[in-house]
Amino acid sequence: MSETPPAALPDGAKDVLAVEARELRAVESALRERFGRFGYREVMTPVLEFAEVIDRAQEGGLREAFRLFDDHGRVLVLRPDLTIPVARLVATRMADHPGPVRVFYLARAFRPPPAGRPRASEQRQAGVELVGANGPGADAEVLALLVESLRAAGLDGLRIGVADVSLTAAVLDGLGVEPDARAALGAALGARNLVEWRRLARAALSGPDAELLAGLPGRRGGAEALEEIAARVPAAGPACARLRAMLALVAEHGAGDAVVIDLGVLRDWPYYSGVVFEAYAPGVGEPIAMGGRYDGLAGRFGRSRPAVGFAVTLDLLHRALTGAEAGPAPPRDGLVLVGGLDDDPRGAAAARRRGLPVVALAASDGDRAERLAEADGWRFVARREGPGYSVLDRATGQRTSCARLEEALPSPA
Amino acid sequence: MSETPPAALPDGAKDVLAVEARELRAVESALRERFGRFGYREVMTPVLEFAEVIDRAQEGGLREAFRLFDDHGRVLVLRPDLTIPVARLVATRMADHPGPVRVFYLARAFRPPPAGRPRASEQRQAGVELVGANGPGADAEVLALLVESLRAAGLDGLRIGVADVSLTAAVLDGLGVEPDARAALGAALGARNLVEWRRLARAALSGPDAELLAGLPGRRGGAEALEEIAARVPAAGPACARLRAMLALVAEHGAGDAVVIDLGVLRDWPYYSGVVFEAYAPGVGEPIAMGGRYDGLAGRFGRSRPAVGFAVTLDLLHRALTGAEAGPAPPRDGLVLVGGLDDDPRGAAAARRRGLPVVALAASDGDRAERLAEADGWRFVARREGPGYSVLDRATGQRTSCARLEEALPSPA
Repeated sequence: MSETPPAALPDGAKDVLAVEARELRAVESALRERFGRFGYREVMTPVLEFAEVIDRAQEGGLREAFRLFDDHGRVLVLRPDLTIPVARLVATRMADHPGPVRVFYLARAFRPPPAGRPRASEQRQAGVELVGANGPGADAEVLALLVESLRAAGLDGLRIGVADVSLTAAVLDGLGVEPDARAALGAALGARNLVEWRRLARAALSGPDAELLAGLPGRRGGAEALEEIAARVPAAGPACARLRAMLALVAEHGAGDAVVIDLGVLRDWPYYSGVVFEAYAPGVGEPIAMGGRYDGLAGRFGRSRPAVGFAVTLDLLHRALTGAEAGPAPPRDGLVLVGGLDDDPRGAAAARRRGLPVVALAASDGDRAERLAEADGWRFVARREGPGYSVLDRATGQRTSCARLEEALPSPA
Repeated sequence: MSETPPAALPDGAKDVLAVEARELRAVESALRERFGRFGYREVMTPVLEFAEVIDRAQEGGLREAFRLFDDHGRVLVLRPDLTIPVARLVATRMADHPGPVRVFYLARAFRPPPAGRPRASEQRQAGVELVGANGPGADAEVLALLVESLRAAGLDGLRIGVADVSLTAAVLDGLGVEPDARAALGAALGARNLVEWRRLARAALSGPDAELLAGLPGRRGGAEALEEIAARVPAAGPACARLRAMLALVAEHGAGDAVVIDLGVLRDWPYYSGVVFEAYAPGVGEPIAMGGRYDGLAGRFGRSRPAVGFAVTLDLLHRALTGAEAGPAPPRDGLVLVGGLDDDPRGAAAARRRGLPVVALAASDGDRAERLAEADGWRFVARREGPGYSVLDRATGQRTSCARLEEALPSPA
C-alpha cells in the first residue's frame, strides 16, 4: 500500500527537459568562457561533506541542509552552498599555491525547501572565488567579472547593489551604539526587517545620529551616497574611502554603469567581512547572484587567506534571460532519416561525419518522421528515393532530390 | 571534542583540482558533441528522488544507495544511477512524444562505498537512452555511438563485449533446465562466479548439453561464436540471428572493429531484457562503460516503451585517457599582469576583449608573478615599463617590450 505515486518527485525537485537543458548549458558555457578570460580555473568538490566541517564554517548562521548518516554513524550533509567547500579545498589542497588563487565552479547546492513554500531544493550555481588578494582591486575584479559574465550570457538591465559590512560596523562603532543594541540591529538586518531596524536605531540613539543610523540601509546611489557618512562619522572614513576606490576601479574595468552603492544589501551569513553585493535582473524578484568578501573563512580549514567571490543562481539567470523572449525556437539544422536505423546506417554515418545531427528511424517507422521532426525541432526529413534521397526542408517546405544527403543540407556552422 | 579533522572528506569523496577538472570537461564536451550528432538531447533530473520510486524500478536487484528523510518523514535517496530517473522522466514528461525518444545526460550517480574498500561514492556519468525503438538497428546505433563518442574523447584500444540476456534465457529454455537450477545459475551469474556456473551446469544437465551450458559464458569472438549455439539449441536461433544482424549493422556504422561477442558479460540488474555490453580500455581493470536493453523499465513509471542505452563512468574514462600520457602540460596562452588588479585594469580588460586570459596581480605583489605563472601554467608575465609593457614568454624565455599587451601575444585560437 504505497502513498507515493509511481513517478512522483520530492518537494522542490524538478526535471529539466531538452530545450531548457540546452539553454542552461549555453548560459554555463558563456559564464565559463568569461571566468577563463580572467584566469579563473574550474574545481569540483563532492556533493556530500561532513556536517561538522560545513557547520563549523557557518558558525551561528547555520543554514538548513539535507542531512544523512554514513556507515559509521557520522552525519553527512548535501553541500548547502559552494563557497564553504571551495574555501575548504583552497585552504587545504592549494595551501602551497603562491596566490592569488582564482577558481570557479559550476555545481549544485542543496537546501530543503521551507515547509509549504515552493522553492527549488537543488540550485545550479556558477561562482568564482579570488583567494589571497584583499585590496579594493580584488573586490573590483570580482564585481567586473560578474557584470561581464552575466552580460556575456545575454543579460540586459543588470543592476548590482553593493554594501560593506565593515562600513556598517564602523558606523555603529563611531556612533557608540551599545553591544545589546548592535546585536538587535544585526538580527533585524538578518531578517531583512527595516521597520525594526529604524525602531531600534531611534531607541539606541537620539537626534541626528538616530536619523543617520535609521536611514543607513536606505542609502543608494553613486560614491556621493557615502559622503555624508564619512563626514558625520569619521570612524567610517577609511571604509567609505575603500568603497569609493573600488567603485572607481570597477568603472575602469568598463562595468561601472551596472554597479551602485546600496547599503540595504544585507547578508545574514556570518562569514562575510567586507564588501557584499546582490545582482538583480528585470522581471526576477530575487537576486540572481550574490557575493562578497569573507576573509575569515579559509582559516577555519587550513591556510588563512582573504577571499572574495560570488555565486550566480543559474535557474534565476535563465528565468531572466527567457522571460522576455517570445515564440517557438526556429528548427535546428538536423535531419530525421527514415531507414537510418536499419536500411541505411552508412548514409547516416556519412552525414554525421560532416557534423550534422542525424536522427535515425527504422524503415517501418517512416510514417512518424514528420511528427518526430516537429516534436524535437529538426529542420529536415529525408527518405530513400531510388538510389538517392528525397529531403524535405521544414523551414521552407521545399523538397529536394539528391544522390547524397549532404547535397540537400546547409554546410554545418 | 570533535573527532572529525577540520577539513576531512567523507569516505569515497574527493576534490577535483583545476588540471583534472579541465580534462574532465574536455571529455564531457567530446561526448556531448557526438551525442548531438546522433540527435540525442540532454535532460537533467534531480539528485534527490523518492526511495520508493527508485526501489520499485530495481525490484529484487536493489542497490545500495544513500538514504535520508524529508520534512514529512518520507525516505529520499541520492540517485544511484541515471537510467532509472531518465526512464521515469521519459515515461512521464515525454509520454506524448511520437518517439523514438533520444536523450542523454551528464550527471553524478551516488553509491555508498563498500566498507573498507576505497571506491568513489560519487560517479560522474555520461549516458544515452534510446526509447521507443526495439529492432537490432536501435541496439546497433547505441553501440556505434558508444564507440564513436569514446574515440572522439581520444580513447584508443577500446573493446566492447556484447551478450544478450534473452539469448541466455533461450538456451536455458531450449536445454530444459529446471526452474530451481535456473535460479541458482542466475545467482552465480550475478555474483560473477563462473566456477559455480560450471558446477551448476554439470549438475543440472549431462553429456554435451552440460558442456555447452558450462561453456556458455566463455564464448567470445565474432558472429561465428553463435553458430554452434544456434545449431545445437534451435530455441536460441532467433536470438542468435538478432545478435548477428545487430553486429552487421554495427559494422555498417564503421564501429565493427571494437565490438565482439562475449557471453561472459553479465548483468546483475534485473531490468535488462536483451542485449547487454561492457566497454573496456587498456590499463583500466573495470568497465569504463556499460549498458543494454531494458524494455520493461519505462512501464513501471508510465508509458511503456522499449529502451536501450549506456552509461560511461567519466572518472574511469579519464583514467584510461591520462594513464598513458607523460610529462607536464605545456604552458597555456594566458598572461599574468603585474598591477592589473589596481594600477591597470584597463590594460587587462583590453587584452581580455581579445579573448586572452589575463590573470591580474596587485602592483605590490609583483615579486610573485613568475611563481604564480608557473603554479597555474600561464605562458606570459607582463609588467608596466614606461608607457608600455615588458612581456616575458616563459615558453621561449624571450622578453619583448611593447606599447600594448596584444602586440607581444599570439593571436587567440
